[in-house]
Amino acid sequence: MARLVMKFGGTSVADVDRIRNLARHVQREVEAGYDIAVVVSAMSGKTNELVDWCRIASRFYDPREYDAVVAAGEQITAGLLAIVLQDMGIPARSWQGWQVPILTSDAHGSARIADIDGSAIFKGFEERKEVAVIAGFQGLHKETGRISTLGRGGSDTSAVAIAAAIKAERCDIYTDVDGVYTTDPNICPSARKIDRISYEEMLELASLGAKVLQIRSVEVAMKYGVPVHVRSSFSDRTGTMVVGEEGFESVAVAGVAYDKGEAKVQLVRMKDKPGVVAKIFGMLAEHNVSVDMIIQSPSRGGKDTTDVTFTVAKSDLPRAKELIEKTAAEYGSEPVEYDPDIVKVSIVGLGMRSHAGVAAKMFGILASEGINIQAISTSEIKISCIIAAKYTELAVRALHEGFGLDKAPVA
Amino acid sequence: MARLVMKFGGTSVADVDRIRNLARHVQREVEAGYDIAVVVSAMSGKTNELVDWCRIASRFYDPREYDAVVAAGEQITAGLLAIVLQDMGIPARSWQGWQVPILTSDAHGSARIADIDGSAIFKGFEERKEVAVIAGFQGLHKETGRISTLGRGGSDTSAVAIAAAIKAERCDIYTDVDGVYTTDPNICPSARKIDRISYEEMLELASLGAKVLQIRSVEVAMKYGVPVHVRSSFSDRTGTMVVGEEGFESVAVAGVAYDKGEAKVQLVRMKDKPGVVAKIFGMLAEHNVSVDMIIQSPSRGGKDTTDVTFTVAKSDLPRAKELIEKTAAEYGSEPVEYDPDIVKVSIVGLGMRSHAGVAAKMFGILASEGINIQAISTSEIKISCIIAAKYTELAVRALHEGFGLDKAPVA
Repeated sequence: MARLVMKFGGTSVADVDRIRNLARHVQREVEAGYDIAVVVSAMSGKTNELVDWCRIASRFYDPREYDAVVAAGEQITAGLLAIVLQDMGIPARSWQGWQVPILTSDAHGSARIADIDGSAIFKGFEERKEVAVIAGFQGLHKETGRISTLGRGGSDTSAVAIAAAIKAERCDIYTDVDGVYTTDPNICPSARKIDRISYEEMLELASLGAKVLQIRSVEVAMKYGVPVHVRSSFSDRTGTMVVGEEGFESVAVAGVAYDKGEAKVQLVRMKDKPGVVAKIFGMLAEHNVSVDMIIQSPSRGGKDTTDVTFTVAKSDLPRAKELIEKTAAEYGSEPVEYDPDIVKVSIVGLGMRSHAGVAAKMFGILASEGINIQAISTSEIKISCIIAAKYTELAVRALHEGFGLDKAPVA
Repeated sequence: MARLVMKFGGTSVADVDRIRNLARHVQREVEAGYDIAVVVSAMSGKTNELVDWCRIASRFYDPREYDAVVAAGEQITAGLLAIVLQDMGIPARSWQGWQVPILTSDAHGSARIADIDGSAIFKGFEERKEVAVIAGFQGLHKETGRISTLGRGGSDTSAVAIAAAIKAERCDIYTDVDGVYTTDPNICPSARKIDRISYEEMLELASLGAKVLQIRSVEVAMKYGVPVHVRSSFSDRTGTMVVGEEGFESVAVAGVAYDKGEAKVQLVRMKDKPGVVAKIFGMLAEHNVSVDMIIQSPSRGGKDTTDVTFTVAKSDLPRAKELIEKTAAEYGSEPVEYDPDIVKVSIVGLGMRSHAGVAAKMFGILASEGINIQAISTSEIKISCIIAAKYTELAVRALHEGFGLDKAPVA
């Protein structure tokens, strides 16, 4: 019998009525003939409440105890959904992470799944036609026998890993939205739902701010080749399939993303001596300030000097400032410039590999709108530009239209 | 090193501040040199919330899923207390029922403890000087590997059973009151705290309504000879020691209890034929109506007829009425009389075994207050009388004074 994993997040399980509502999705797939594992998160707000209690208990709480406390959220949802399914006449039972078991590393609070033994789940399918309702987010550290958790949003990863373990045909992730969009519909009304997208593109879009799927779950899906279906819990319509590259015509640009979470730092007219730049970034790395884009260019002023521009997370800016100011004089930089009012706009698409001129086209579109590009970075399937934050909407809409994303792709 | 079990209930763990407060008791005993296992209940109100969700999910919920859901309450408290203790510099870790493990029967929702393996707890004591914070109320059904719970108030039983398993010197049960009283202080201001009481007396007092300790925990304590110390979580003062009969002079009467939870049923002038009474009580038992006291007497009217009086739980009265009325005609009873306005007043004391005339004295005290006794039942260490509910306070005070319970016992 074909197997299916279905994952439901916090708002879908916010109370017993919502749980009853999502159970209809499970019923539909049971009736379609699937053997089903359902992965659930904690009721929305519940995890935050539990995390808060840990923090009140101690600023330096033991992550092993934190895991024992917060894992209770998923435990409750799993039991309640099993009861609701049984009430609808569907055989079901709940599984805690330690019961499956889902074995993890010992990095409490952000553990990685090491191994899942699917045999008990299989037995439930075969002997009792039983839906397995599995508590997401949690696992068991094999050596110590203690409860572990995967970190925020970890239920997506649980679901995909379980799909791999039970060789499921597909992993359906039910969310508040009906799929992955070509860009943020809130700022670009012509954004379209994408029918199929590759793991690679999804990874780039997710990390750039299209927060539909936890990024680690996409990595696991790619590693094990699990087709992921991102879809709405409010309807039965198809959403977005996240799949391998094979088997679909790749378009040049699949989506436009933006990220307001970065700030720009500019070191002006630094002495252009070997090792200076390495020293600065070494120091930042040492203090856990991670740097995203870096551009070095000959200084507009002064001979034998250089300008270095880079971006850090906005939340790291105060710390970065402090570190740089302590040492800038040493490197001979003039007053350092900081700019938090920037945005990173990116286009993502597998087709860039084969389609030439995509970058040039992007720069052209931005230029024609009079938008100055402050920095550029590129990867194989992504081009990102730093621009002034006030141009966010303008840039996203122009790129979205310019690359034809407002029109359905030709089959 | 001497070992100690400390148990804290729902109001003592209602929030993180209260948990921090109870941790001072643990600290005091750590400093006194004990190896300690702390058993905790769910935060007050939490279990009710979880039970309600199960009921909303289905009127006929699976007790195995119910157990998975409600056990989350104790899981949370155990983790939080471990964090708080660590924050105070006391090594501690939480233990779920399945981690210890505490193995139980498969009677989900009201499981009985079958076996506790204390070896992991011991290892924590010896290798890490670690306080074991154990989630009360919950266990593991060995064959199925599923979470079980012991029924409401089960954490007292967890605590006593763990004390037996780790051969603790004592099991301290922290409550809202500072011990067991000679009677209910709310209706008898001269009620005194009892310093020492036997398991047997405690069992009779608990079942009669002095709701300080869960009755099953006293049975377990008696079976394994675990001294139980009932004490207040608001002070460091000694409470009441519940111990074996040996080693203290037993007084004739240790306490006066009352129970308003019963109702009286009177079948008048029934045909006095063999088997009639057995038939009636057989029918009630078959329908799970349990009968407490039974008095049969020749009828005041009619020849060859008999009157039968008995008591049932007030909550069972409507069901009992229905069953009896369906069949009363068959037995020839005249209209059946029901009286919910009664109270059962009892005196309890090991000394009754050796002190003659205790019953006569009780009846005399009630008579001198003009209180009519409607029914009497006796056991080896208890005498109970059914009287009109309006005399409750009067009877309790008169018996309490009449048996000298308002004065401290002579050492």
